[in-house]
Amino acid sequence: MKYSRMFIQTLKEVPSDAVTPSHILMLRAGLVRKLASGIYEWLPLGIRVLNKVASIVRRIHDEAGCLEVLLPTLLPKSLWDETGRWNEYGAELMRMRDRQGREFCLAPTHEEAITDLARTYVRSYKDLPLIFYQVQTKFRDEIRPRFGVMRAREFIMKDAYSFDTDEKSALASYEKMFGIYKKIASALSINTVAVRAKTGLIGGSRSHEFMAVSEEGEEELVYCPVCGWGANQELAKSKLPPASDEKELPLKEVSTPGARTVGEVSAFLKLPPSKFIKTLLYRKPDGEIVCALVRGDDSVDVSKLASVLGMEGELPQLGDEGEIEKATGGPLGFSGPVGLKGIRIYADETLKNCRNMTSGANKKDYHLLNINHPRDFNAEFVNIRKVKEGDICVNCGAKLKVARGIEIGHTFYLGTKYSAKMKAVYTAADGKEKTIVMGCYGIGISRVVAAIISQHHDENGIVWPKEVAPFEIEIIPTTNSGDAMKKAEEIYEALSKKYEVLFDDRSVSAGVKFKDADLIGIPARVVIGPRGLKEGKCEIQRRAGGSEMLSLDKISDSLVQLTR
Amino acid sequence: MKYSRMFIQTLKEVPSDAVTPSHILMLRAGLVRKLASGIYEWLPLGIRVLNKVASIVRRIHDEAGCLEVLLPTLLPKSLWDETGRWNEYGAELMRMRDRQGREFCLAPTHEEAITDLARTYVRSYKDLPLIFYQVQTKFRDEIRPRFGVMRAREFIMKDAYSFDTDEKSALASYEKMFGIYKKIASALSINTVAVRAKTGLIGGSRSHEFMAVSEEGEEELVYCPVCGWGANQELAKSKLPPASDEKELPLKEVSTPGARTVGEVSAFLKLPPSKFIKTLLYRKPDGEIVCALVRGDDSVDVSKLASVLGMEGELPQLGDEGEIEKATGGPLGFSGPVGLKGIRIYADETLKNCRNMTSGANKKDYHLLNINHPRDFNAEFVNIRKVKEGDICVNCGAKLKVARGIEIGHTFYLGTKYSAKMKAVYTAADGKEKTIVMGCYGIGISRVVAAIISQHHDENGIVWPKEVAPFEIEIIPTTNSGDAMKKAEEIYEALSKKYEVLFDDRSVSAGVKFKDADLIGIPARVVIGPRGLKEGKCEIQRRAGGSEMLSLDKISDSLVQLTR
Repeated sequence: MKYSRMFIQTLKEVPSDAVTPSHILMLRAGLVRKLASGIYEWLPLGIRVLNKVASIVRRIHDEAGCLEVLLPTLLPKSLWDETGRWNEYGAELMRMRDRQGREFCLAPTHEEAITDLARTYVRSYKDLPLIFYQVQTKFRDEIRPRFGVMRAREFIMKDAYSFDTDEKSALASYEKMFGIYKKIASALSINTVAVRAKTGLIGGSRSHEFMAVSEEGEEELVYCPVCGWGANQELAKSKLPPASDEKELPLKEVSTPGARTVGEVSAFLKLPPSKFIKTLLYRKPDGEIVCALVRGDDSVDVSKLASVLGMEGELPQLGDEGEIEKATGGPLGFSGPVGLKGIRIYADETLKNCRNMTSGANKKDYHLLNINHPRDFNAEFVNIRKVKEGDICVNCGAKLKVARGIEIGHTFYLGTKYSAKMKAVYTAADGKEKTIVMGCYGIGISRVVAAIISQHHDENGIVWPKEVAPFEIEIIPTTNSGDAMKKAEEIYEALSKKYEVLFDDRSVSAGVKFKDADLIGIPARVVIGPRGLKEGKCEIQRRAGGSEMLSLDKISDSLVQLTR
Repeated sequence: MKYSRMFIQTLKEVPSDAVTPSHILMLRAGLVRKLASGIYEWLPLGIRVLNKVASIVRRIHDEAGCLEVLLPTLLPKSLWDETGRWNEYGAELMRMRDRQGREFCLAPTHEEAITDLARTYVRSYKDLPLIFYQVQTKFRDEIRPRFGVMRAREFIMKDAYSFDTDEKSALASYEKMFGIYKKIASALSINTVAVRAKTGLIGGSRSHEFMAVSEEGEEELVYCPVCGWGANQELAKSKLPPASDEKELPLKEVSTPGARTVGEVSAFLKLPPSKFIKTLLYRKPDGEIVCALVRGDDSVDVSKLASVLGMEGELPQLGDEGEIEKATGGPLGFSGPVGLKGIRIYADETLKNCRNMTSGANKKDYHLLNINHPRDFNAEFVNIRKVKEGDICVNCGAKLKVARGIEIGHTFYLGTKYSAKMKAVYTAADGKEKTIVMGCYGIGISRVVAAIISQHHDENGIVWPKEVAPFEIEIIPTTNSGDAMKKAEEIYEALSKKYEVLFDDRSVSAGVKFKDADLIGIPARVVIGPRGLKEGKCEIQRRAGGSEMLSLDKISDSLVQLTR
């Protein structure tokens, strides 16, 4: 394909609403264009990548014996009423009425539809197991669409659903899909960590997220580089430190004028932050104030606290000065667990093993030394701290890593959550009617494109892995006329028979060509200039780095190595 | 793929709401399943065909240098307001509001969106011509969804849009797309006729429909088998018969007791129907009664009449007895053009050349002989008759054919209808700003599957053309155990390396296997039974007819011929 005919729309400027590298590069390289908030158009260069991703995902599902289907976008309310999700899903579910006034949603996911399919056709245990998948456009009315296609309102997803006779078989299907997802991540050159995750609106009892490790990820994840254990921060744990062998000392009030934060008091008292109890007051949506305690060198994970408080879809908020004063009797910055009354106290499990800790005295400019549990305060011990890099793996004792990640895939063990409500049953070998056991699995196809870029770019642009690159080879003549141009065109014609080739035929300077080439990131580049030509040579440059001079008559063979 | 793992859901019964052969067979072969009115699920066997159709359509567009894009389903109202179509489109346009209350439609077509794309990036005449295409799900809230995927509310379409500097270039793009559509029809083994068509809600000045000739088609089309001229019945013309050389005879009233229809009066008076004027009274939506005249052996095409009356989207209705009596003074069955007052009369052009015609006397039980224009009545002469098989081609004088057809593709020359309203302009070579000239083009991908079936089936099921068949080969062992089964499995393993093979591994009778094989219509069948096996042979059957015994060790080579 000639560059001039490919409608490649590179941008020099960074669009103002783009902050993440993948979003910036997708816009700058002209892969997508925003039409409305969270709604994107895929331009010719972008759709080539999207199609390749979809085709790799399809191939790996097909090879594993999964069956492709295509379910509709418009799903009738009646189906969603069967599981109660029509009401549960809230504003994220896009809804509409047809000309007869019948209600439909624009499917954000297809558990109801696929369960309806299964209950229609599955009769006997002999019909199971089954795994269906589809590549299809999904709709979610995100409250805050952002990061380009990463969190869009209309996006392309591969979703899969497994149907089994019993839990054992369903878990085997879960493992199978887990394997498929690992294979896909590897085929797409995405470095992923599988972490335990919450199940949210999909439900079920077991769930993993496949996280592309990336600084621009929205989620924090914790994983063990040794044993592979991993979890989202909101579900992460680490090994508790050993119990302190200090003797309990008497409680002692000390003056700490103007020192409010752990940092300030620690400097003032010359005690390490790990000898402090951080005391934070939170407000629940119903107005109740609760107290959360973590060690001075830790921080509260609000999602974990929300879980402990039984909250769903919302997070507790920090109390304001008035609320703190009312709940503790002291001002902001001097809260502590001792003497608190009429308030629920949640302490992180770490604190169970600590002795002689320091915290606020609930009194202006005073702190208490040598606070000990249960002598001085009572609390419910729970997991509410953020796990930190270097904490110890509960599984193998190695040091944990903390990273940010982009969720590219999600697996859910659903059990009978949907099949029981929708009466998806089969006749077992013993003639009895049993409920089908399900799992569901998703990969964000459009998001994967962004995730690949987030892991494969440099300061000049995208560095496509060859499997998903829009073209395999780009040919760049350094002049726009004469022998170099003629030879470039010749080579273009020849290579196009075997490869996907982009030929920069534009009448622009070599500098512009190289800048655009860096930005759009085709893996291999054939540079043809008058100087090399005199020696019958061209230069092969790899976008990922490295180059070599090559005899023009050997070019076709040499590229095999570069592109396959 | 093994039959038992493929989730093939064949039905013995004909579903009650299915009347057309393609609809019945798509349901019976388990290609699709209805979820709601006009909303279908594609099952594993069906999606394989759908994907192949899409991939052939993509390939032919790509080869011609068209650029694939992917535009969103959700389009903001503001875009559609620019062209006025938000209001024009009516109830067929599915609409919804997002959580912020902003209005969107579920795109039924993408002229606005693609024009917005073009006006954003196209700057100079050097950027043109451009042809974009996409394969995407479309939504139209059909008032009466029917015939399965043929007239669905959610369906898959390939739409394309051309952008050119001027009319000449735009017509060249139109011709190019015309060629692409012919190539696609041929690659999909669909026998099509391209006919002139109305432009409807898309608009523009030139339009062709690509009609798959089929008895189950909803539209009547007229075409010339010699010169290729064709049109929808509502736009069709034929050559007028030569002027009559009869002398005008005096008008004469005759008694025709009880004879009302042309047939009855013609028999009674012993005059051929071609000597009659059929006089029909129609009511417009505004209540006006108009009179339509055609020759006794012709019939009125109501769509043509609607066009003549300047009606859009509605059709005139036949007047009732009261209205006829009021307008003509005579009862139903005795209307004629002579003496009609205060009423517009439209006569088909054929009648201009007729002499001494017979029609009702607007008086019970009387007709008039020797009616002549303009002596006895006045009328506006227009094209309102249905063209009949055997009428003469206006273009070449050959005999026309009349057939029914399924619209699988539609091309529109749009001119500047969208680009002018949306200010999609470019700078011409002379430095002046000019408006881009457009065309748009569509192929119904899901409908094409039905159209293929409508042309490729027999009384036992589908007869897939090999290019789109869900599998290339089906292997059928006639027994379910022993050597035949073992050999079948062996051949399955071997052939699967080269072909898409379906292996009927079910424990059912050979009769059931053959019935299902006929229904799902895989082109080549390898039948392996104990008798043939003794001689080292199997039977190769073609679904389209014909079979041969083949040596088992030569099977792989022979199939090349059968399947390629």
